[in-house]
Amino acid sequence: MEKLRTHIEQVTPLSDEEFDYIKTFFTLKKVRKNQFLIHDGDEIKHEYLVLQGIYKVFYVDNDGKEHILQFARENWWMSDYTAYFKQQASTMFIECLEEGEVLSLTLLGREKLAADLHKMEHFFRVKLTNGYIALQKRILLLLSSTPQQRYEEFSRLYPDLLQRIPKKYIAEFLGVSRETLSRLYSNGGK
Amino acid sequence: MEKLRTHIEQVTPLSDEEFDYIKTFFTLKKVRKNQFLIHDGDEIKHEYLVLQGIYKVFYVDNDGKEHILQFARENWWMSDYTAYFKQQASTMFIECLEEGEVLSLTLLGREKLAADLHKMEHFFRVKLTNGYIALQKRILLLLSSTPQQRYEEFSRLYPDLLQRIPKKYIAEFLGVSRETLSRLYSNGGK
Repeated sequence: MEKLRTHIEQVTPLSDEEFDYIKTFFTLKKVRKNQFLIHDGDEIKHEYLVLQGIYKVFYVDNDGKEHILQFARENWWMSDYTAYFKQQASTMFIECLEEGEVLSLTLLGREKLAADLHKMEHFFRVKLTNGYIALQKRILLLLSSTPQQRYEEFSRLYPDLLQRIPKKYIAEFLGVSRETLSRLYSNGGK
Repeated sequence: MEKLRTHIEQVTPLSDEEFDYIKTFFTLKKVRKNQFLIHDGDEIKHEYLVLQGIYKVFYVDNDGKEHILQFARENWWMSDYTAYFKQQASTMFIECLEEGEVLSLTLLGREKLAADLHKMEHFFRVKLTNGYIALQKRILLLLSSTPQQRYEEFSRLYPDLLQRIPKKYIAEFLGVSRETLSRLYSNGGK
């Protein structure tokens, strides 16, 4: 649970008493490689903070084609957020690509934490702000950039993920062909 | 300012005293048709709550092509949020398509309101949550849907905007050609 405390304290300092209260809302879960945390159609009760491992959040369209919405690694949060916040059935899958551990939090827990502690309301607001900016950037990249620009931006922001995630998934995430991605890799993105 | 109070109270009730404090952070601004609230390269000091009118938030790429990130109408918030939150120069434009009024709020004002009033921290968190869900939905639509699916989703969510926004901008927002959009309009999306 020390990782959780460090994670929250990057945004706001906590007293021991506050953290003792906060941690009661979280549940540790070990996840194996290729295990699914969320399936299409599930009722979504949890969001997850990644303590260890790599995860892929994706959508499968009517033609069976997979579209990756996000990856998640240590200190990132993930869920099918539309389903989680609106308490609807999931339209996504979350699959573990590298075994690890996550902390789960229910929506009821999240709302209670935010209501009880102004600091936690602030923490969640800051996290949402960062998430909002990241999604907006992703939309602009999808709308307007070349494969090379997308690859360069991804390499700049997440050099570690280039090493940890199979190329086929990175190609899919960037919306480029595997051939194009291989060419960009071998040129170092130049 | 009564519109502001109604808007906030859709999320959380306020006392007269609280609202009297909150409203001191907002400034009313009238906007003419075709006026730009934000230019590419501007230092972004404000976000805007739309009281009246229709606005277009867009990006222009290196080839001079315009990409619409979002529209905004009454009770929607808008800015170049990356620039606003990170205090960077804007990469976007905001243009008024239908004259109206906005309330502006500085980042300093936003942060002070959220720190002083737990209710306002909550309000901003709820707004960000809704914004996050909307952006995630937009990414999934961009990644995986046909022009017809995008048009149908837009018509379902924003029937009023179909009437108020020129077709060429709706086509651009949806990433479809004007010819395709005209066909969808005349079929009522069927």
